[in-house]
Amino acid sequence: MTLTTSSTNRVAGGTLTKYTFPSASLGGLSTAVNVYVPDGATAAPVLFYLAGLTCTEDTGAQKGGLFNSAGKEGIALVFPDTSPRGAGVEGEDADWQLGTGAGFYIDATAEKWKKHYNMYSFVVDELPRVLKEAKLGLDFSRWSITGHSMGGHGALSIYLKNPGLFKSASAFAPIANPAVVPWGIGAFGAYLGGEASDPAPAAWLAHDASHLLANSSAPKGSLHLLVDVGTADQFLTAGQLTPEALERAAAARGADGELQLRRQEGYDHSYYFISTFSPEHVAFHAKYLKA
Amino acid sequence: MTLTTSSTNRVAGGTLTKYTFPSASLGGLSTAVNVYVPDGATAAPVLFYLAGLTCTEDTGAQKGGLFNSAGKEGIALVFPDTSPRGAGVEGEDADWQLGTGAGFYIDATAEKWKKHYNMYSFVVDELPRVLKEAKLGLDFSRWSITGHSMGGHGALSIYLKNPGLFKSASAFAPIANPAVVPWGIGAFGAYLGGEASDPAPAAWLAHDASHLLANSSAPKGSLHLLVDVGTADQFLTAGQLTPEALERAAAARGADGELQLRRQEGYDHSYYFISTFSPEHVAFHAKYLKA
Repeated sequence: MTLTTSSTNRVAGGTLTKYTFPSASLGGLSTAVNVYVPDGATAAPVLFYLAGLTCTEDTGAQKGGLFNSAGKEGIALVFPDTSPRGAGVEGEDADWQLGTGAGFYIDATAEKWKKHYNMYSFVVDELPRVLKEAKLGLDFSRWSITGHSMGGHGALSIYLKNPGLFKSASAFAPIANPAVVPWGIGAFGAYLGGEASDPAPAAWLAHDASHLLANSSAPKGSLHLLVDVGTADQFLTAGQLTPEALERAAAARGADGELQLRRQEGYDHSYYFISTFSPEHVAFHAKYLKA
Repeated sequence: MTLTTSSTNRVAGGTLTKYTFPSASLGGLSTAVNVYVPDGATAAPVLFYLAGLTCTEDTGAQKGGLFNSAGKEGIALVFPDTSPRGAGVEGEDADWQLGTGAGFYIDATAEKWKKHYNMYSFVVDELPRVLKEAKLGLDFSRWSITGHSMGGHGALSIYLKNPGLFKSASAFAPIANPAVVPWGIGAFGAYLGGEASDPAPAAWLAHDASHLLANSSAPKGSLHLLVDVGTADQFLTAGQLTPEALERAAAARGADGELQLRRQEGYDHSYYFISTFSPEHVAFHAKYLKA
């Protein structure tokens, strides 16, 4: 796989490079990814940042406030896009909650979406493989993952589905229990088929962070999870985030100290919230990435 | 003057509020400004951030990376817009280097522009008066100013034109000598009249940071200036920034230690450059604002 460099910027004592490449998981469509590597890194630990609905590979890079902390810690950052672009699926641009910008970090099984909408395989398998092959100075034996909103769902669910692959996971205002909230019901119903039910369809629960945490086979005490959510988050109020489901799951799992869930008074869903706490998330991951 | 609140966000242990109000300096047009006040501030020192061409009151707030440092130092931040909006001047939206988004922080004297394009008076007089009257917890006896590109020109020239008003000034990639570079010649020629000449028209030099520094009547040693410019800045290469003019002016003035001009290897003109060094700029201003 050949990466094409579309831009480079110096930032925080390192270099941010935007690469494009044709993605097999995304049905051959070209995708873009921002990769930050601190100067002199030959085997830097890696933190993936998964952005939310409507965002691109640039959003977290431009507004997330992650670079200075990552540079000081010597951690590389990877910002993938949030969906395939230009798949041409009927309706993919009609609703900001589905299709373009709304890949939900799952592999679609529904006929209409399954050729291109495979952001789970893209993030977990293809992208790290492509970056490893490109020899950019990243050490995928020390890899962690974070994200915002839809990307918080992605970070938590991908972490929990792959025990041992990542050192730690964190999330800003994640969709913590997508199988039972409107965003998740809409996206999972379209991409995976099935309808909201109690219990939710198994294919949905397979990507639901709260379900995965409650039922994780990871050794007790081995999970490292940090979650922040603002108490004035408009989507918390709207019932899309339900962080209490994660707390219930942690309690059901019965391993104390694995989940730090912090409710940040008055903060909302915006990047002002993320940039306030992103240095603490980088520090949290650094503890495990550099242990 | 009544401020209308159009949005509020919690950020960095404080509150960012976007206000709108009808501006007399801008010919009665409504303008928007973002104001960040750290929690509990009753008389916070104030740092103005002036953005560059094409930007708005949101650009520095969303991408500048200033909040966490300002919050820790207890410094309020004010982000004005970069021009009037909707003045209806013929051609104001035809060129990104003039008119909307390109107020250049001067008061126009040319007939066509003079009713609305008065960003100098807006920043120096009207905005601080409006904010003082609104009793937001800001202490304008401790006031500093920074900015980027066109806003770097604004910060430096406004600082140097008003000895004693500000504690310190800094700039990211400023247009350091606008009277002799294409951006300045275009804007000053339109807003102030006159044509490029050697020496430049007096009305132009009255807003030229390098000219003002070389001829400043401020007591020797009383100026506090920090300027960063990236060596890979595309507008440095294009001859729009000419930081060497500032160095020559500082030498001509003959007061050592007033200007710190740093060339940052490989950095460009983007907010990746700004967000890398903005914490150091906040710390620089804090030294004088909190002395």
